[in-house]
Amino acid sequence: MASAADTAAAAAPQTRLTAVSSRIRDEYQRGPDVWSLFSPLVFPGATNLGQGFMSWAPPPFVRDALLSASGERVDTHHYSHAKGRPRLRAALAEYLGPSVHKPAPGAKDVPSDLGAPKLREGAEKLDIETEVQVTAGANGGIYAAMTAFLEPGDEVLMFEPYFDQYICEVTYLGGKPVFVPLQPPADASSRIAGADEWSVDWDALEKAFGSGKVKAMILNTPHNPIGKVFSRDELSRIAALAIKHDVLVISDEVYDCLTYDGHEHIRIAAFEGMWERTLTVGSAGKSFACTGWRIGWLVGPPHLIKPALVAHTRIVFTCNSAASEAAAIGLEQASSQNFFPTQIAEYAERRALLTGMLDNLGIKYTQPHGSYFVLADFARLRIPEDFELPEEIKRRPRDFHMAWFVAKTCNVVTIPATAFVSDEHAGLYENYLRWSFCKGADEIAQATERLEKLRPYLE
Amino acid sequence: MASAADTAAAAAPQTRLTAVSSRIRDEYQRGPDVWSLFSPLVFPGATNLGQGFMSWAPPPFVRDALLSASGERVDTHHYSHAKGRPRLRAALAEYLGPSVHKPAPGAKDVPSDLGAPKLREGAEKLDIETEVQVTAGANGGIYAAMTAFLEPGDEVLMFEPYFDQYICEVTYLGGKPVFVPLQPPADASSRIAGADEWSVDWDALEKAFGSGKVKAMILNTPHNPIGKVFSRDELSRIAALAIKHDVLVISDEVYDCLTYDGHEHIRIAAFEGMWERTLTVGSAGKSFACTGWRIGWLVGPPHLIKPALVAHTRIVFTCNSAASEAAAIGLEQASSQNFFPTQIAEYAERRALLTGMLDNLGIKYTQPHGSYFVLADFARLRIPEDFELPEEIKRRPRDFHMAWFVAKTCNVVTIPATAFVSDEHAGLYENYLRWSFCKGADEIAQATERLEKLRPYLE
Repeated sequence: MASAADTAAAAAPQTRLTAVSSRIRDEYQRGPDVWSLFSPLVFPGATNLGQGFMSWAPPPFVRDALLSASGERVDTHHYSHAKGRPRLRAALAEYLGPSVHKPAPGAKDVPSDLGAPKLREGAEKLDIETEVQVTAGANGGIYAAMTAFLEPGDEVLMFEPYFDQYICEVTYLGGKPVFVPLQPPADASSRIAGADEWSVDWDALEKAFGSGKVKAMILNTPHNPIGKVFSRDELSRIAALAIKHDVLVISDEVYDCLTYDGHEHIRIAAFEGMWERTLTVGSAGKSFACTGWRIGWLVGPPHLIKPALVAHTRIVFTCNSAASEAAAIGLEQASSQNFFPTQIAEYAERRALLTGMLDNLGIKYTQPHGSYFVLADFARLRIPEDFELPEEIKRRPRDFHMAWFVAKTCNVVTIPATAFVSDEHAGLYENYLRWSFCKGADEIAQATERLEKLRPYLE
Repeated sequence: MASAADTAAAAAPQTRLTAVSSRIRDEYQRGPDVWSLFSPLVFPGATNLGQGFMSWAPPPFVRDALLSASGERVDTHHYSHAKGRPRLRAALAEYLGPSVHKPAPGAKDVPSDLGAPKLREGAEKLDIETEVQVTAGANGGIYAAMTAFLEPGDEVLMFEPYFDQYICEVTYLGGKPVFVPLQPPADASSRIAGADEWSVDWDALEKAFGSGKVKAMILNTPHNPIGKVFSRDELSRIAALAIKHDVLVISDEVYDCLTYDGHEHIRIAAFEGMWERTLTVGSAGKSFACTGWRIGWLVGPPHLIKPALVAHTRIVFTCNSAASEAAAIGLEQASSQNFFPTQIAEYAERRALLTGMLDNLGIKYTQPHGSYFVLADFARLRIPEDFELPEEIKRRPRDFHMAWFVAKTCNVVTIPATAFVSDEHAGLYENYLRWSFCKGADEIAQATERLEKLRPYLE
């Protein structure tokens, strides 16, 4: 399986113009990413519990909103303002205002105890002209923020495992990702652990913050792929470090509406001293089951939103108008439709089906408290020595081998966890496979049946 | 009228994290752009012949396609492949294949006479896996290409006037725009000129190419705002220079389906020696009256498309799926619906209404042969000395004053031409206002009536 980049490079004429920029060179030469290796094109007919898109359409009230924006109406077919459609910005301000706890204008928003900033009490109304930005997916929002703030050589902290898009969103802008591993509980392979048991190595985090070169941190809560919902204490300690070291926090909260078992999603922007240094990132795709709409957002203070707008405007100019309008209506009506609690209950059922599938095999996993992924420990899987792996898979860690073996043997696609970690720390995670439960009950049932073929290979 | 950036900057806390990146600093500090200064928010109730979006929805067969992709169907609400939906890539290959004239594989595609490359005869089928890329609007496509290829210090040639997005699409990636003015006919203020009379200064172009630092050229044909459709001879001469100096050509052809009076749009990629060095840029928004869909494309050889994909994937990941599906169906059915010829006839009528409006005032203009803009020479306009201009307008060239005066006096919005030129060459264009005719007959009629108030100020 030759990499497409290799093929393209081989065919390229030998002229100066074919040289790709240094910012993309590593990525260009890296060969296929995990999504290509485990794509439905590679495994047609497989049960896909891999990539995190839903097996269903958005709910009827949201589809209806999209339909009414997609017909004869004129403005919804044309440019929205580069800031985003005013109706969507207004809906976002309503939706996020109470949980980001914006401080009052002129208020001295500093923690009384820098070791433990508290959640702010008040919650001012967000200004839709200067504090809310609609972006080309959450992805486009993070890219715009990085474009706006990163200088070459700036370090960007992130926990491992990380959402894989973060890496190039940093390196393309000349930044350097710095990784702090989230530690699985020591006995995770022998029992079902809670996602809250994955722990921050505070010494490592403090050391990373202290390099003097950290411009930003990407936080992700609820966390993909662990399903960890960062606790109030953890967020407070992270906030203290961000304030002490004067660091911008890009808080990827795209799973904010998907938490289970009473775990509460708390926004780090809501802590004293954090509003002024936080861009909170969200996604219509994750909220309303429409990952193909490409509507995301950034919320933060004017001095962070304005630079992001200046970047966003020239990168993509503006976002899809009909989808923006429908996302606005989705947010406006979510409460009267009791949508988010209903959706959580539905996801909790799917989570039970998926963990049931793993229980059935006797495989241990981390019980997620947020997002729609389960990390399962397949240390017990023994791949026969004569099983053939393609070169692209062979040269990667053991979890890639396992995911390939599962896909070939059972026709079920999953994602190897080291797709989300640096080479340096791959050893910590190479027994894990990530399973998505944003999939239908029928699919999970089918996977359960198909995975029976794995039994002979489980020790 | 204080700039929003100034206000934001003033409110920012004095910490290191508020420093915007050097790549966006100039743009951040520039103050409002022309679109903000002349936006409908500033002139509510005005007849808007400014920004280039249509006053109508896409045609029924395209709307129907969007509606059927926006309902209960699942896949059209979720991620498309980062390359773009296969159906859209296939439709683009069909649509563009005959006019880009891709050479046969392995063919030595070199011009027999480097002074005058010829149009290639054959036209191979495009490979939808490696030669077609769907992008977040034409804008996102150009940005991805620049991300993929520009190194800091690389020069990017472009003709003036230019589409204003080009500038930051070069400077954000560390590139340096280099301008070669298109020259209006000397007596343009006293007669109606043809867009083909705007001429390339070949000595200046050759000199610019010769700097040894030119990595790319952005070509724009049909041209916004002149309406010039570059001729076969002009394109051949540009091709010769691009080949001689080993330069990548990013050919912005978003108005490719809008040419008038028998002027034929020719793609520069179709000339001998050019396929290997050209990315051809197009737009569903311009083709089907849906500027808010944000669907564009790049077509070119694998060694140019692959790096653009590698950039695009990390910048926005993928594009709106329902809009992609509808654009595919639009292209598939355009021919059986006789859509493009019908649309051209409709635009030609609107062009006649708009030039009639100018004739009525005795204002001279350039007759456009493509796109939907008319550049009109308002040298004869005398703004009273006591007319007050906001500071933001006053400090800009004379055409900004004129556009402001027209908007305030007549309640009709137009765009000053120097929004599309460098400071260095503003003097060449400061008598011109750009008028859009992607507007309804009723709007043009209303503008015609409203502009009567201008008569006392025309010498």
